[in-house]
Amino acid sequence: MAGSSVLRHNWAMSTTEPLLDQLRDIVGPKGWLADEADLEPHLNDWRGAMRGRTALMVSPGSTEEVAAVVRACAAAGVGIVPQGGNTGLCGGALPGITGEQVLVNLSRMNRVRSVDAKNFSMVAEAGCILANLQAAARDAGCFFPLSLGAEGSCQIGGNLSTNAGGLNVIRYGTARSLVLGLEVVLPDGTVWDGIRALRKDTAGYDLKHLFIGSEGTLGIITAAALRLFPAPGETATTLLAIERPERAIDLLSVMQTAMPDRIQSFELVSDACFRAVEQYVVETRLPFDQRSPYYVLIEAETGGNNDAFEELLHDCLERGFATDAVITKSEAESAQLWRMRHSIAEAEKHMGKAQKHDVSVPISKMADFLENAPRRIADAVPGIDIIAFGHVGDGNLHYNVLLPPDTPPGDQKEVGERITSVVYDVTAELDGSFSAEHGVGYLKRDDLVRYRSDVEVGLMRSVKQLLDPQGIMNPGKVVS
Amino acid sequence: MAGSSVLRHNWAMSTTEPLLDQLRDIVGPKGWLADEADLEPHLNDWRGAMRGRTALMVSPGSTEEVAAVVRACAAAGVGIVPQGGNTGLCGGALPGITGEQVLVNLSRMNRVRSVDAKNFSMVAEAGCILANLQAAARDAGCFFPLSLGAEGSCQIGGNLSTNAGGLNVIRYGTARSLVLGLEVVLPDGTVWDGIRALRKDTAGYDLKHLFIGSEGTLGIITAAALRLFPAPGETATTLLAIERPERAIDLLSVMQTAMPDRIQSFELVSDACFRAVEQYVVETRLPFDQRSPYYVLIEAETGGNNDAFEELLHDCLERGFATDAVITKSEAESAQLWRMRHSIAEAEKHMGKAQKHDVSVPISKMADFLENAPRRIADAVPGIDIIAFGHVGDGNLHYNVLLPPDTPPGDQKEVGERITSVVYDVTAELDGSFSAEHGVGYLKRDDLVRYRSDVEVGLMRSVKQLLDPQGIMNPGKVVS
Repeated sequence: MAGSSVLRHNWAMSTTEPLLDQLRDIVGPKGWLADEADLEPHLNDWRGAMRGRTALMVSPGSTEEVAAVVRACAAAGVGIVPQGGNTGLCGGALPGITGEQVLVNLSRMNRVRSVDAKNFSMVAEAGCILANLQAAARDAGCFFPLSLGAEGSCQIGGNLSTNAGGLNVIRYGTARSLVLGLEVVLPDGTVWDGIRALRKDTAGYDLKHLFIGSEGTLGIITAAALRLFPAPGETATTLLAIERPERAIDLLSVMQTAMPDRIQSFELVSDACFRAVEQYVVETRLPFDQRSPYYVLIEAETGGNNDAFEELLHDCLERGFATDAVITKSEAESAQLWRMRHSIAEAEKHMGKAQKHDVSVPISKMADFLENAPRRIADAVPGIDIIAFGHVGDGNLHYNVLLPPDTPPGDQKEVGERITSVVYDVTAELDGSFSAEHGVGYLKRDDLVRYRSDVEVGLMRSVKQLLDPQGIMNPGKVVS
Repeated sequence: MAGSSVLRHNWAMSTTEPLLDQLRDIVGPKGWLADEADLEPHLNDWRGAMRGRTALMVSPGSTEEVAAVVRACAAAGVGIVPQGGNTGLCGGALPGITGEQVLVNLSRMNRVRSVDAKNFSMVAEAGCILANLQAAARDAGCFFPLSLGAEGSCQIGGNLSTNAGGLNVIRYGTARSLVLGLEVVLPDGTVWDGIRALRKDTAGYDLKHLFIGSEGTLGIITAAALRLFPAPGETATTLLAIERPERAIDLLSVMQTAMPDRIQSFELVSDACFRAVEQYVVETRLPFDQRSPYYVLIEAETGGNNDAFEELLHDCLERGFATDAVITKSEAESAQLWRMRHSIAEAEKHMGKAQKHDVSVPISKMADFLENAPRRIADAVPGIDIIAFGHVGDGNLHYNVLLPPDTPPGDQKEVGERITSVVYDVTAELDGSFSAEHGVGYLKRDDLVRYRSDVEVGLMRSVKQLLDPQGIMNPGKVVS
């Protein structure tokens, strides 16, 4: 078996050598990496759970160079893996393990082409780092709402090709809803210039949605016209202690109604998460005397009218939706709470082997999920522990299950899969999705086939076949 | 030629008679119309400008019946024209003139299947009238923001298949952004059940966007999961007099920034429009002593804080963005202003032959458009007059051009086309769209080919070919 793998690799190398020369010529001396050490950060995922190989990574400097790279690969029938900041969690931006695919990194395409404050829009290239786009919007007196943990290194091309979610979806929608137009290099190397910055456009099929969220399997997004917003007014950060998950849903409903479209973030965190953060990452403690099974962290636009906001919280406490509440009194206090929220992923690393999930259900079924899933998982795998947190305002939970501490290393994979199977089954029973905001990538291809109907998967496959008949765009990801 | 047309008609009748029997059986005795007088309202467009023919209109009562109808037509290779409230303006819901296509009217599928207030969502069938859905949302303590002139008779299936716009797009987006999931009967009669009410779902390609805005050419939308919102707080209606269109853009920018996401409508109306309304439709006059070339009608959520809103308007007056302003003091006063706005289309009918357009440009280029287009049109056709109004907050103008009164009836078509050609050219030069919210339908098919790139039209055609290889879904509309 080892022999056949080497053979395959040699075969690939010999047939692609002229192609690799051609690709190096297209992007010039600054536009490629082939050295193993240089490639290293581009071949591993953020969690260290997946790894790929490649003979060459090219970093085109322009749309024309991307198109030329794609044309060359298409002519040679060689697979292309588009990569942004490589912060994805499903392996969507990693090449396969055979080393036969060319990695196309978009980092050098990092220009903000234009900002049009009066149109509340900007045009940015795929390689722009999200935080830089937030700053560019701010500099123009506007606001770009997409915000997620990786914003300091993830790139907008990746955000769009995965339809990223994050913290502000409850008010502003996912990445998809922030796109006005796209520029895409199609799998045959043709450039589709769909950069339009219009709020209304019903001139034919809205093609951009084919490429948003399809994880580079239908083409490479090279630039986008993005929606900007007026900056929200003054916000308040509040943490509430709640006893049962359904109280969070009541709270959400009451607060949304009282402050229509002013809730910016609405995050549920279980006590286990915060305990782990306190133990392993952040030195401070929660600002409550008593622990509570769950907490809700809310960012809301009050426009400076804090009296009304405090009154609303009081009312929620009186009605029993929460048992305690604090409003932060300074930006530092708010930052501290958000730091605790953002440190959960890091804290988890210290807690043992966890099986991770990113699920969504209708908000009204979230309490159901949080109450039933632990029982169902424990039935299948006794001794587990749950780390649950997420964007409850969007019905999205990061639902991570700690394997029983005594699970033998050799059994971890199988036990993990058994857990995942229960989590996804419960999700499906509640009309949810096994992938809320992390995409499908390489990891969840089988789940897509299992949890979506034959009609739906068949449609996806035929769209893939239509746009990429050679199957060279991000092979082996999403649908095959 | 007349002979050949009759021949074709006879041929169609003889081959389709067994099909028509089959279709009548599927929908039952209450589910079809074949009498010419009964069919009349379904064969003419709202403006009386277009007319189609059919041998049979079926009104299926369920998704299964729609699927059976489509399967039967697919087997016979006979074209299907889906129709909702028949309020479209581009002929998208009318059968062709040969009478060979079957009209599938969705009116009987008018159930609200469920409302989930805690999830801010509802599932409605395609034939639900928009105003009824607004009411169903209200009854559940929520708000469904889609709102347009035809809301008392248009149906949600039509709204979604044309990606309708309307009055509240500036705050809530177009119909597309209000859809969480779809149920669609595909061109081979397969049902795709994509009804999911999730805020985040990255499990593969987001197929619903193929069907939204494709005007029934890729399948028939039979039901949708729709987003609801918390009802906005108290609103204020204000009318401002402005001297030049660019002042409206300044005003929009300042007001959006001062009241982020609280502007619900922002409508520009030229004085010519209001004069026509006053003359032909509504008896009252504008609440200003002096006329102004343009007016802006704004609906904004003030949450009852009218002092702050008045202060903002004062500031705008002082900075010269507007020359006069009134805030309405009662719902009746607001309703009166909105009645004037909504009466423009009716008033236009009295003003002579108008060439109508529904264009969008980036908001920042709207003043350019309004200043340059009249000159450019008058160069091509001297003696024209302009009726301009629209959703300036979305960059969308209804830009209607009155033909010179002395245009001989026989020349009107050619003169009208010359005008349209200039309007669309100016729009294209400003990176705009020749169809903002009315779609393409039958009327604008040639414009799509002319104003969109070969790559884009080619992609649309290949998507059409993929999903509807027989070309039976709404033949001759959008792309051919």
